[in-house]
Amino acid sequence: MKSTLLRNVRLNGQPESQDVLIEKGRITHISPAIAPPVQTEIVEGHHRLALPGFIDGHAHIDKSQWGMEWYVNEVSRDLPAIISNERDFRRHHEFDSQRQSERIARQAISMGTTHIRTHIDVDTEIGLRHVEGVLATKEKLAGQLYLETVCFPQSGLLGRPGTQQLMDDALGMGCDYVGGIDPSSFERDPVAHLDAIFALAGKHDKGVDIHLHEPGELGAFSVELITERTRRLGLKGRVTISHAFCLGEVDLPRQDALIRGLADMNIAIATTAPSNRPVPPYEKLRAAGIRVTAGNDGIRDTWSPYGNSDMLQRAMLMGLRYRWRQDREIAQALHAITQGGAEVMELEGYGLEPGCHADLVLVSGQTVAEIIANPPQDRAVFKAGKLVADRGECLF
Amino acid sequence: MKSTLLRNVRLNGQPESQDVLIEKGRITHISPAIAPPVQTEIVEGHHRLALPGFIDGHAHIDKSQWGMEWYVNEVSRDLPAIISNERDFRRHHEFDSQRQSERIARQAISMGTTHIRTHIDVDTEIGLRHVEGVLATKEKLAGQLYLETVCFPQSGLLGRPGTQQLMDDALGMGCDYVGGIDPSSFERDPVAHLDAIFALAGKHDKGVDIHLHEPGELGAFSVELITERTRRLGLKGRVTISHAFCLGEVDLPRQDALIRGLADMNIAIATTAPSNRPVPPYEKLRAAGIRVTAGNDGIRDTWSPYGNSDMLQRAMLMGLRYRWRQDREIAQALHAITQGGAEVMELEGYGLEPGCHADLVLVSGQTVAEIIANPPQDRAVFKAGKLVADRGECLF
Repeated sequence: MKSTLLRNVRLNGQPESQDVLIEKGRITHISPAIAPPVQTEIVEGHHRLALPGFIDGHAHIDKSQWGMEWYVNEVSRDLPAIISNERDFRRHHEFDSQRQSERIARQAISMGTTHIRTHIDVDTEIGLRHVEGVLATKEKLAGQLYLETVCFPQSGLLGRPGTQQLMDDALGMGCDYVGGIDPSSFERDPVAHLDAIFALAGKHDKGVDIHLHEPGELGAFSVELITERTRRLGLKGRVTISHAFCLGEVDLPRQDALIRGLADMNIAIATTAPSNRPVPPYEKLRAAGIRVTAGNDGIRDTWSPYGNSDMLQRAMLMGLRYRWRQDREIAQALHAITQGGAEVMELEGYGLEPGCHADLVLVSGQTVAEIIANPPQDRAVFKAGKLVADRGECLF
Repeated sequence: MKSTLLRNVRLNGQPESQDVLIEKGRITHISPAIAPPVQTEIVEGHHRLALPGFIDGHAHIDKSQWGMEWYVNEVSRDLPAIISNERDFRRHHEFDSQRQSERIARQAISMGTTHIRTHIDVDTEIGLRHVEGVLATKEKLAGQLYLETVCFPQSGLLGRPGTQQLMDDALGMGCDYVGGIDPSSFERDPVAHLDAIFALAGKHDKGVDIHLHEPGELGAFSVELITERTRRLGLKGRVTISHAFCLGEVDLPRQDALIRGLADMNIAIATTAPSNRPVPPYEKLRAAGIRVTAGNDGIRDTWSPYGNSDMLQRAMLMGLRYRWRQDREIAQALHAITQGGAEVMELEGYGLEPGCHADLVLVSGQTVAEIIANPPQDRAVFKAGKLVADRGECLF
């Protein structure tokens, strides 16, 4: 594997440019004016910002319709109706989850994403087709993208017999996490749902990542149940709650108590920073030592037409949602789409220090705040030191 | 002036392409396969969507730092602190409001904007410099952009003696509207502030456009005072309330009563659809017959670093904020950045029918919902039938 010398890049947006030497896929040396070893490819960075590869901590790449004919959305806002509409769509349309997950993953890579945690639908109608599709994409893109998988009972675990066995099978096939969904408002039996998914986690020695859209005190009750089970089953540090709108809705003493429980069990939070729902209190979570990742959620599917898989756009939306205007506030959005995700996914060797994997993005701009406030399209993306995308196009 | 024939464009996103004949700056004929008159320039539309030129109904082009060295924002979230910080910045930095308003106006044009209503700071420190700057830009870009101006007492009208006279002078110089700002929370005397700005409107026979950030019942009280003065002074149809967060905060019977008053006085609403504040209830306002425009507000200034003057991005943010996912819901965001603005600005001959000014944007996409959910960068912009921007670059 050839060595690469990146000349004149501004690491994490620092004002001064440096050179970065990459050998055997890792960063080995950072300083101004490095003398290149023989047979080293030299890439001029033109004083662009060098950022760690972006991490999408909550995605649904198995169901994106990216590149397909436009889906005309006519579904109501009701969660069960949206889920039922999606199953109905699948009954009447050919949908190749391998092809589609690859398409949206390539789009994500072209925008600078190097790591994705994706939830994959498992239900009694599609069975394990989406799991097979995404695992095939994972293998196919292994050199360009790290893909972490969560098998996800989107249509519910309790009401549709056979789903639990399918989840068990999905974990056997290699899914990394056990997914779950609103245990009270959607599943109608919080204890039965949570006990079932934590049992799967125990059986397969996997972590848990639960979709929790439940509002206010109902969601807070679910957070308590999740925290209790995490403690009881010894899963400290291996559980993520996705969305967790309720943390932004309950009153402050209640919020503080919930956060203490989450911190105590090292439970992570994944947020999409939605502009139309309450959001978990980012600064308070971080101050309590809680790991927080940001995600793009579904991109162009039967749920929602929005997005282009760009994590810088997600950082922008996060900044707008949290009303971050100071440069030092906006830097938190960069943390959420980089280091925050690495903490949640427990990535080894992530970052821009010597020894780290050379997963990085070069992007033009004056400061980190500028490229988040107005994300530029022109990016160069390196995975393990290899240029995998440039100017919005994948090179593989 | 040469005639132009646009071939194969999909008007307002209709599935079937048509041709559009433009003569003397106006659309004169729309149908499939028009035979071009002699000496007509033919532009192939490649079945792109043709949309009316975008309208930014609430901007601050006088204060944008677009193209300047990055401003590091360290200001707190408090409104008086932000305003004071801005005056302080101007004391210590050269700021050419003509140059800057032209820069951001060109950026807006490159993204498809053909009409802007902009608020212009007037205060006892900068005097009328920003008014002079923006009016010079208005004249300079008259062939490419319709610019409507609001003289705006950003630092307050009551607490800084001399401001009222400056506002009077600004109106005499040609500003189209009288601006105002939070009459209670910022100005500390709602009756005195509103009486002063309505008096200026009466004296100069101009309309009024008031920034109203006041929350809940305080804002609702201001809405009542504005509605009362609109009625008493015979300004029906000539008043806009910008932001009006309070309309999305009060309880429903109160909201209904306020909306009845607004509808009765034909008071318009301008919204930026902020993701971190309550928003006026778009569908209810429109159902009551109230005109609603969308705006980008300040772009890259000492207030906020966000944005790129793209009204399609604003439409996307509006769709996200209002949780519009159905195609027919998302179409409302297009209305807000086109016809809604035209209604608020009372534009003659706006739209895509024969007889209208040929102000339009060609953009690639399958449907209106697609180009709002993921705004493409590649656009061709026509003002009065003349190509003024293409692929993100102004051609003048």
